[in-house]
Amino acid sequence: MKRSRRSARRAGQGGPRIQIFGLRGIPEVQPGDDLARLALGAARREGVALARGDVVVLAQKIVSKSEGRLVRLADVEPSPLARAWGRRMRRDPRFVEVVLRESRRVLRMSERALITETRHGFVCANAGVDRSNVPGGLVTCLPHDPDASARRFVRAVRRRAGVQVAALVTDTFGRPWRLGLANVTIGAAGLRVLEDLRGTRDSQGRVLHATVVAVADELAAAAGLCMGKRARAPVVIVRGAAFRSGAGAARQLLRPEREDLFR
Amino acid sequence: MKRSRRSARRAGQGGPRIQIFGLRGIPEVQPGDDLARLALGAARREGVALARGDVVVLAQKIVSKSEGRLVRLADVEPSPLARAWGRRMRRDPRFVEVVLRESRRVLRMSERALITETRHGFVCANAGVDRSNVPGGLVTCLPHDPDASARRFVRAVRRRAGVQVAALVTDTFGRPWRLGLANVTIGAAGLRVLEDLRGTRDSQGRVLHATVVAVADELAAAAGLCMGKRARAPVVIVRGAAFRSGAGAARQLLRPEREDLFR
Repeated sequence: MKRSRRSARRAGQGGPRIQIFGLRGIPEVQPGDDLARLALGAARREGVALARGDVVVLAQKIVSKSEGRLVRLADVEPSPLARAWGRRMRRDPRFVEVVLRESRRVLRMSERALITETRHGFVCANAGVDRSNVPGGLVTCLPHDPDASARRFVRAVRRRAGVQVAALVTDTFGRPWRLGLANVTIGAAGLRVLEDLRGTRDSQGRVLHATVVAVADELAAAAGLCMGKRARAPVVIVRGAAFRSGAGAARQLLRPEREDLFR
Repeated sequence: MKRSRRSARRAGQGGPRIQIFGLRGIPEVQPGDDLARLALGAARREGVALARGDVVVLAQKIVSKSEGRLVRLADVEPSPLARAWGRRMRRDPRFVEVVLRESRRVLRMSERALITETRHGFVCANAGVDRSNVPGGLVTCLPHDPDASARRFVRAVRRRAGVQVAALVTDTFGRPWRLGLANVTIGAAGLRVLEDLRGTRDSQGRVLHATVVAVADELAAAAGLCMGKRARAPVVIVRGAAFRSGAGAARQLLRPEREDLFR
């Protein structure tokens, strides 16, 4: 676990500087596709060479597609609960059924939203099941193990290009209390997802107590500025950000239930 | 309301590209200081000229200090409730008293955290009251009207440098369900804080329904990568991000109570 050399160097020259590149030239991803190959090709065409210390941010949608995490609604038999809530929510009951199957707990059921805890432990609307940017009749589900997806991507980039990058798998989640979606991390490899400043001192020399920063989620949100559903850059490179490399994982971002005041 | 010219131009050349500059050379801010003057000076010393379409992101701490939103704990008489919770939480009861005074509603009181709704409507720990990076015996409170703070900054930059920028005032908030703090917007001027994609079509030609992106919060998080309590860049410039200019305000990010499932 050490500070990325790139960011340490940059921090020396005045203030920190970060660059973000959105890669648009990724073809429609098919089950079995190697995302590292697609990302390296798109980067090359945009004149960007991946470098040590880069964070490669992958939209959940392409990771799910490459892993075949698609469900054909025609094949889904909705339960009575899914039928009832489909009517109340004016959604396809087969969609509601897929959401319930992808969930390990329902937090809120209302006409407006179905907020559940996914099998990984993420809390979000519709368990991350999504119809947008998917061919008709299909929905995508979150990867089975997005941390493993990120690790595989990091290994494949190292094998193909000889470069050590960090990788995030991200999705846009809603938030309580605040409107709008923001891009957050659901899978991570090659970096510490939380930066723990407890015990360090502030500019006044006072020890910081409660300061743990969710670096991976700030990286995800930064990449989200280039992703968007219209921007169509499903792969984004963040260069120059200060983070600690190491064996982090998105599951470390999950607040344990016993410490959670809003479940 | 129109797409920033800079981002439109960049979007033409392959994928989107964003640059983030953290400005470290801001002196300790005093009540009455003109943040636009300090930011322009720091940018000049780092060789960065503010340009149309830039988003200037200001850490809440320096905005609060410039507006004199400091409270001396020695002047605070804690109520019985603040005394009781100071004991339970092992915090200074005068700090708890300031938190309660800054709140219009308490959502959760536990030994670990005091989650309240501020007078503006933000939900966060300790109503945004903070002791870090403040001289001993003082705490900072959130600005009275952070949207007005952002508007004043935008006007002052236009007056001093003749450049139209957008501005955000940001603070690090915790999140339910997820560990770690992330930088979010509490004040905004010169841009639309929410990008409403409902009614537009996805890559499959299907109309997007639930897609409203909290662009201002993604910008805040991106800037957070350069801020941090150790990075000490209290002013950050985000250049090249796609956003719509316009008369947005952070209060538009507040989810109305009747639509909130977690209050």
